[in-house]
Amino acid sequence: MKEKTMNIKLLPREKVFRDPVHNYIHVQHQVILDLINTPEFQRLRRIKQLGVADYVFQGAEHTRFTHSLGVYEITRQICDNFAVNYPTQTPGDGLWDDNERLVALCAALLHDIGHGPYSHTFEHIFGTDHEAITRRILTDPSTKVNAVLRGVAPDFPEKVASVIAHTYPNPQVVQMISSQIDADRMDYLLRDAYFTGTKYGEFDLARILRVIRPYRGGIGFDANGMHAVEDYIVGRFQMYQQVYFHPVSRSMEMILTHLLERAKTLYEAGKFDTRFNPRLLIPFFEHQFNLQDYLRLDDGVLNTYFTYWLDYPDLVLQDLASRFLSRRPLKSVAFTNQTARLLPKLKALVAEAGFDPEYYTAENDSFDLPYDQYDPSVADPKTQIEIIQRDGTLEELSTLSPLVAAISGKAIGDKRFYFPKVMLSKNADDLFAGTYTKFQQYILNDSLIEPR
Amino acid sequence: MKEKTMNIKLLPREKVFRDPVHNYIHVQHQVILDLINTPEFQRLRRIKQLGVADYVFQGAEHTRFTHSLGVYEITRQICDNFAVNYPTQTPGDGLWDDNERLVALCAALLHDIGHGPYSHTFEHIFGTDHEAITRRILTDPSTKVNAVLRGVAPDFPEKVASVIAHTYPNPQVVQMISSQIDADRMDYLLRDAYFTGTKYGEFDLARILRVIRPYRGGIGFDANGMHAVEDYIVGRFQMYQQVYFHPVSRSMEMILTHLLERAKTLYEAGKFDTRFNPRLLIPFFEHQFNLQDYLRLDDGVLNTYFTYWLDYPDLVLQDLASRFLSRRPLKSVAFTNQTARLLPKLKALVAEAGFDPEYYTAENDSFDLPYDQYDPSVADPKTQIEIIQRDGTLEELSTLSPLVAAISGKAIGDKRFYFPKVMLSKNADDLFAGTYTKFQQYILNDSLIEPR
Amino acid sequence: MKEKTMNIKLLPREKVFRDPVHNYIHVQHQVILDLINTPEFQRLRRIKQLGVADYVFQGAEHTRFTHSLGVYEITRQICDNFAVNYPTQTPGDGLWDDNERLVALCAALLHDIGHGPYSHTFEHIFGTDHEAITRRILTDPSTKVNAVLRGVAPDFPEKVASVIAHTYPNPQVVQMISSQIDADRMDYLLRDAYFTGTKYGEFDLARILRVIRPYRGGIGFDANGMHAVEDYIVGRFQMYQQVYFHPVSRSMEMILTHLLERAKTLYEAGKFDTRFNPRLLIPFFEHQFNLQDYLRLDDGVLNTYFTYWLDYPDLVLQDLASRFLSRRPLKSVAFTNQTARLLPKLKALVAEAGFDPEYYTAENDSFDLPYDQYDPSVADPKTQIEIIQRDGTLEELSTLSPLVAAISGKAIGDKRFYFPKVMLSKNADDLFAGTYTKFQQYILNDSLIEPR
Amino acid sequence: MKEKTMNIKLLPREKVFRDPVHNYIHVQHQVILDLINTPEFQRLRRIKQLGVADYVFQGAEHTRFTHSLGVYEITRQICDNFAVNYPTQTPGDGLWDDNERLVALCAALLHDIGHGPYSHTFEHIFGTDHEAITRRILTDPSTKVNAVLRGVAPDFPEKVASVIAHTYPNPQVVQMISSQIDADRMDYLLRDAYFTGTKYGEFDLARILRVIRPYRGGIGFDANGMHAVEDYIVGRFQMYQQVYFHPVSRSMEMILTHLLERAKTLYEAGKFDTRFNPRLLIPFFEHQFNLQDYLRLDDGVLNTYFTYWLDYPDLVLQDLASRFLSRRPLKSVAFTNQTARLLPKLKALVAEAGFDPEYYTAENDSFDLPYDQYDPSVADPKTQIEIIQRDGTLEELSTLSPLVAAISGKAIGDKRFYFPKVMLSKNADDLFAGTYTKFQQYILNDSLIEPR
Repeated sequence: MKEKTMNIKLLPREKVFRDPVHNYIHVQHQVILDLINTPEFQRLRRIKQLGVADYVFQGAEHTRFTHSLGVYEITRQICDNFAVNYPTQTPGDGLWDDNERLVALCAALLHDIGHGPYSHTFEHIFGTDHEAITRRILTDPSTKVNAVLRGVAPDFPEKVASVIAHTYPNPQVVQMISSQIDADRMDYLLRDAYFTGTKYGEFDLARILRVIRPYRGGIGFDANGMHAVEDYIVGRFQMYQQVYFHPVSRSMEMILTHLLERAKTLYEAGKFDTRFNPRLLIPFFEHQFNLQDYLRLDDGVLNTYFTYWLDYPDLVLQDLASRFLSRRPLKSVAFTNQTARLLPKLKALVAEAGFDPEYYTAENDSFDLPYDQYDPSVADPKTQIEIIQRDGTLEELSTLSPLVAAISGKAIGDKRFYFPKVMLSKNADDLFAGTYTKFQQYILNDSLIEPR
Repeated sequence: MKEKTMNIKLLPREKVFRDPVHNYIHVQHQVILDLINTPEFQRLRRIKQLGVADYVFQGAEHTRFTHSLGVYEITRQICDNFAVNYPTQTPGDGLWDDNERLVALCAALLHDIGHGPYSHTFEHIFGTDHEAITRRILTDPSTKVNAVLRGVAPDFPEKVASVIAHTYPNPQVVQMISSQIDADRMDYLLRDAYFTGTKYGEFDLARILRVIRPYRGGIGFDANGMHAVEDYIVGRFQMYQQVYFHPVSRSMEMILTHLLERAKTLYEAGKFDTRFNPRLLIPFFEHQFNLQDYLRLDDGVLNTYFTYWLDYPDLVLQDLASRFLSRRPLKSVAFTNQTARLLPKLKALVAEAGFDPEYYTAENDSFDLPYDQYDPSVADPKTQIEIIQRDGTLEELSTLSPLVAAISGKAIGDKRFYFPKVMLSKNADDLFAGTYTKFQQYILNDSLIEPR
Repeated sequence: MKEKTMNIKLLPREKVFRDPVHNYIHVQHQVILDLINTPEFQRLRRIKQLGVADYVFQGAEHTRFTHSLGVYEITRQICDNFAVNYPTQTPGDGLWDDNERLVALCAALLHDIGHGPYSHTFEHIFGTDHEAITRRILTDPSTKVNAVLRGVAPDFPEKVASVIAHTYPNPQVVQMISSQIDADRMDYLLRDAYFTGTKYGEFDLARILRVIRPYRGGIGFDANGMHAVEDYIVGRFQMYQQVYFHPVSRSMEMILTHLLERAKTLYEAGKFDTRFNPRLLIPFFEHQFNLQDYLRLDDGVLNTYFTYWLDYPDLVLQDLASRFLSRRPLKSVAFTNQTARLLPKLKALVAEAGFDPEYYTAENDSFDLPYDQYDPSVADPKTQIEIIQRDGTLEELSTLSPLVAAISGKAIGDKRFYFPKVMLSKNADDLFAGTYTKFQQYILNDSLIEPR
Repeated sequence: MKEKTMNIKLLPREKVFRDPVHNYIHVQHQVILDLINTPEFQRLRRIKQLGVADYVFQGAEHTRFTHSLGVYEITRQICDNFAVNYPTQTPGDGLWDDNERLVALCAALLHDIGHGPYSHTFEHIFGTDHEAITRRILTDPSTKVNAVLRGVAPDFPEKVASVIAHTYPNPQVVQMISSQIDADRMDYLLRDAYFTGTKYGEFDLARILRVIRPYRGGIGFDANGMHAVEDYIVGRFQMYQQVYFHPVSRSMEMILTHLLERAKTLYEAGKFDTRFNPRLLIPFFEHQFNLQDYLRLDDGVLNTYFTYWLDYPDLVLQDLASRFLSRRPLKSVAFTNQTARLLPKLKALVAEAGFDPEYYTAENDSFDLPYDQYDPSVADPKTQIEIIQRDGTLEELSTLSPLVAAISGKAIGDKRFYFPKVMLSKNADDLFAGTYTKFQQYILNDSLIEPR
């Protein structure tokens, strides 16, 4: 029935994209090729996958473009596996209906298309929402992406959008794209590990793709692949601890946040010097932007305005722009709920040394839930990972793995306080040497302490 | 003597940068760390190493920043090897004087610092010269790079510049940085292979670093490492054929060239619409730029203006900007000196189909000399690769290797003619179907032919 | 003082061995080269590192020879690091005394030299002890290894032996070679991962080598490297679960055990057919072997006798030899202390189907303690892993890592019961079909159960 | 028609073998699994792929077993590609008939099954022929391999044998297994590169598998994959120069040759001491062996007898056995047809120094033809590599590639003379110092020369 209403055109011969992570990305449908060639998708070439992380892991210069193709490719491989090994025989048998392939592939390819430059920071300052924008790009008739999707079927854009919104009826398709072990996470772990040159995120993709299988409630894993899944969870945990939450990356994010805040404050105060006009950012300063405005933004556009501001008369704006472009991070120290009460004293010392604490200190907490069981009592409950026994019964992952149990349900991360590097100076001749010494008494072994 | 006049400060503990190619970049000198932290060097993070190549090899999103650190690291490893195994005993013995280490390291780190965005294309249009600019950045007192180098010794900036200019008296230092097998080429082959995911550029760096050695006239290689050197030459040849000269990369370069040419033409004709003002490019349009203007440019700045021009009233500018940002390449066919005479006919057909041939066709020839012997009769003779026999006699590489001899002294590459993709249309219903058919009769097996 | 009494000769130029795991093994001392060239060490080329594991992971054909060189190389790199970054200034300052280098390198190289073919199985049957034999090889004047070591100093063989026996006074040297994170374990994890083609054992050696450091009580790790150490512990845990304890490898070990037991039983019963005489095994059958007898054994010698026995009149011996050489494993099922009481019933069914349960069933339990804190109350307490804070205080690893805490102190593994594959037959026409069906009722989801 | 007469049973679910080179080997046919499980095939686990090469490249401990599975896997991937992209429509259209798959897979798996221990050396001494034995193993009704093949169809063993003998009518099947770019060579290059840890043999298998295609006359390659094929030819050339022809490997082969010759001479002279009886070798000494005798041999069997001979009364036999087991190679020097006339003088000096030149010197020439065009005038003409243009015309590889042209048709290698290491002694106190000095005057830069 579905096939009748969908216009699915295969390429005369598959087209490939060379990729260092998956070797080749294989494209077999005309619609996938057309989606890749839309301006909205090509824009992802200009948005780095890890934002500012390349300031610490210099190889991390890869973009959301290559990641999106990678998510597509893993999804394609899962579909191939399901179609060969678990094809549905009768509706409702819990096996794979290959008519779902195209919607899965499109959702995989497009899941990140609403991301903007320096995504989370930008959203935080300007109140944008990349998920809502993804939905807009898929369903707004003004976009090329929408036009391509409509070519498949009139309701196809909505279908793809509903997969990304988790409201699509087939849970296998939804979980392939979005769950605690989905094509998105699998690609970014491998890709980020490859480009950063760290090994923590590596796991055995080939084995996972051998043991993944559909069941009535979604996607599960053969019992004999349990350790491969466990290894993936641990790898993801390690990447958060080692790479994504690196204190210096977060420092550069803090500087970016303050830089955009300062520009916005100046603009809103009506004091913006128009010689340094950030043309493409104005709609966002004005709180009046449309989809087209959003799609004009990328990392390079923001960096271009930061370059403008290197000459801006406001010294704070100028300095923050320079710090961001030339990588001069703030230093940091970990604190806890208990030691948070000491922060005002530290900020006072930073002010005493001549820095505006609003722009030259920051508090950042970064936490991730590495894995969780399904809990219907919380908002946005997680789809837990199911291990499928030989007789078909399901076992939730953490009941089988002591490693996963150890980190399950626990948000892991830390809170850090950021401040200018000079506060750690040991130079006794410095004008503020006394202030610095007082400041340093609050720090031991990278933690905030009550001075002795 | 040298040590007396140079201020060389070692870091209390070496600092490392994680790198996917070399695992770690090891920094031991304060001056190297300070150079890395200059705005001029940090700017290289915003300039892609391979320009437009990521339009074909999507992983090639790495920058001149990581490459520059890689060249530094290989140079550092060569110096370590030389210092342990071939330390000079008496002046003029042809062995390694480790007092040369710092000048070599600085030259390695900074050899590309004068590069601008989309380097060769930009130079072609605006008449800039990255080598001259490198020299300026090193020696102009206005730069931070110069300030750091001056901190070592007053004449140190000039020394480093002379290494890059090949005029430094010690040929070992010069050849380490710039010869037919230098740290620059070794890093870019490995790095480009890693990020593109191709294998052609891979060679056995560990073995090369074991057999490289100084001699009076420069840098040579132990006889038992001949095959490793041969493999490097072949690998480089392959990268040129397969990656650097890829027809589609060159197509995107042609589009970029025409796009910048069109903008310049409009500007010079006094017709530039100031709503779309490319603020940081104006000095280049005006033929009046200073070093500071140059250092404000990067890939993102150019792309930002291309984004502006998506709305520009001139249709050619608008379309070329859109083609560049959204990757819509021209198609191409190889031609020779013999078949070049057919090009006017092809251009006429392109014009007949409604395209301005000035902006929608292009001729590009890309040739590389994979290796050459020293020939004093040519301008800019090459430093040939010397293999050192057990008794100390030298043998030029191509006399020992039939593979190298086969490609030595021969420029290898091709000439291609670029045109709009629609010219290859087979759609008989198209308005210009007859024109397209005529056009296609000139092409067989990717070559231009006289129609039969 | 030490240097005076030790004869340490460096090679004129270092010699290297190409190695796929470490790229090159670097040898700088004549004594190391001489040790490698002894017959006792070269014998390790004929003893596979993982015994029968290549029956499951076919790439695991590497030997104790390459592993031993790998342990040496990691130790060498640790010494290099310590000598540069943590050289002792005054005796007892807890830093590294590079006079300890040679004893550490020799102990690393020779730590496995006492291993025989199919080590643990052989020891189990013939009562040999590879640690005692290692000591003999080092200290017995009849060996070439002893002669080489004596060339350094008369007491040097004893010194090296005491490192391996954990009685050497310097805990840094002992822990480098033997602790919960030592050069031995680091090499075998990486090497076994490389040759099996699994990824579980991979960890970030480069980072571990950067954060390892000496302290008064042994070897510790910088706080900022905690996650790399954690990753190593988890990797080791995974290799045990996935590779070393693989049910089919254990099956082949069970067959080997029964095969050697059968031969020994026949020999001891005086019934051995001398046409199939296992010449080099006779001393072991006779319980009268000397060091020279032991050093004549290797994997190939045992396999040669198994080949002899393919024609042996005793059908059990013949069949077990054939099963071992041609890889026909027994099948298995997991059991627990609770379900162990069912095993006699299963064995009775195996007997009913015509197999002697003594040779055609087996119970195997394989457990490993992935990590443990120091506990003085147990026999052979573990040296716990210490993380060194910035102010020098020590923190035991599992207090910092929830992952390590989860597996600390818990022996992890399983017990399996082995039986002939035919017991799982579903063929209703088989003579013993009824027996098989009964047998199968005891198995569900790879576990032994009370039949319903 | 073929399908009717062949009994082809697919496994209910594919079975995989983990492999470090291809990640997984995928087995889909019951007959392939059964062939792998025969004793004749399992025997390949005990025969190293590269004979003595692990004496130089220590990682090269892999066997013909893993290689054979690798050749199978590459063949399987080629068949998959052909079946999807180039399925035959009408007989004789030059496309791929997937009924040929099973015969191709079996030939790939079994192509090396006739190899014995230390293959070429053993053949040289005992006059065996591994190709004839392969044929015997396939077609002799006494083998398990034959029984499995007969289960497919009565004439199937002969069919598989005819593929290996190049007489099978379908040239596509023959060239897949045996040509200048076949699955055999592709696997061994990648595998030997992986296990030795060298990079020379690496090439882009993924790309080759994308551009390979059937044509009427066999197997060709798309024009756009020419450089990948060129890279493979160069890689193979490099492996021969760097690994397969390594002077020290050849030295160990010379020792092995002399060792077996000495044993044979002693045996034939009726002087063999029966206490050291090489039971399984006797049929070969007696020139009366059957297939069963041959199949009992493996590397370990030979090494076991060499271990016996360490105690043999004949000093030459004892010493050569010890040299082989403990890796004490002869040294060597290159010579040419011109300098060959000096060899008698060198041998006389070796004799003067107390060594029997028959056993302590050797001449070895190792040459390989890296690539050749088809030449009907020579015995055993090569199947040249064809590059297929877009219009279907064929171009022979070396006409397109200057690199391949440079080495095409030229046997490349060298001749070396082997002698005891002590001949290079510089120790003036040695009894034979004068002899050594004379000897050394014949050597310069690793070449034989007329003394000056």
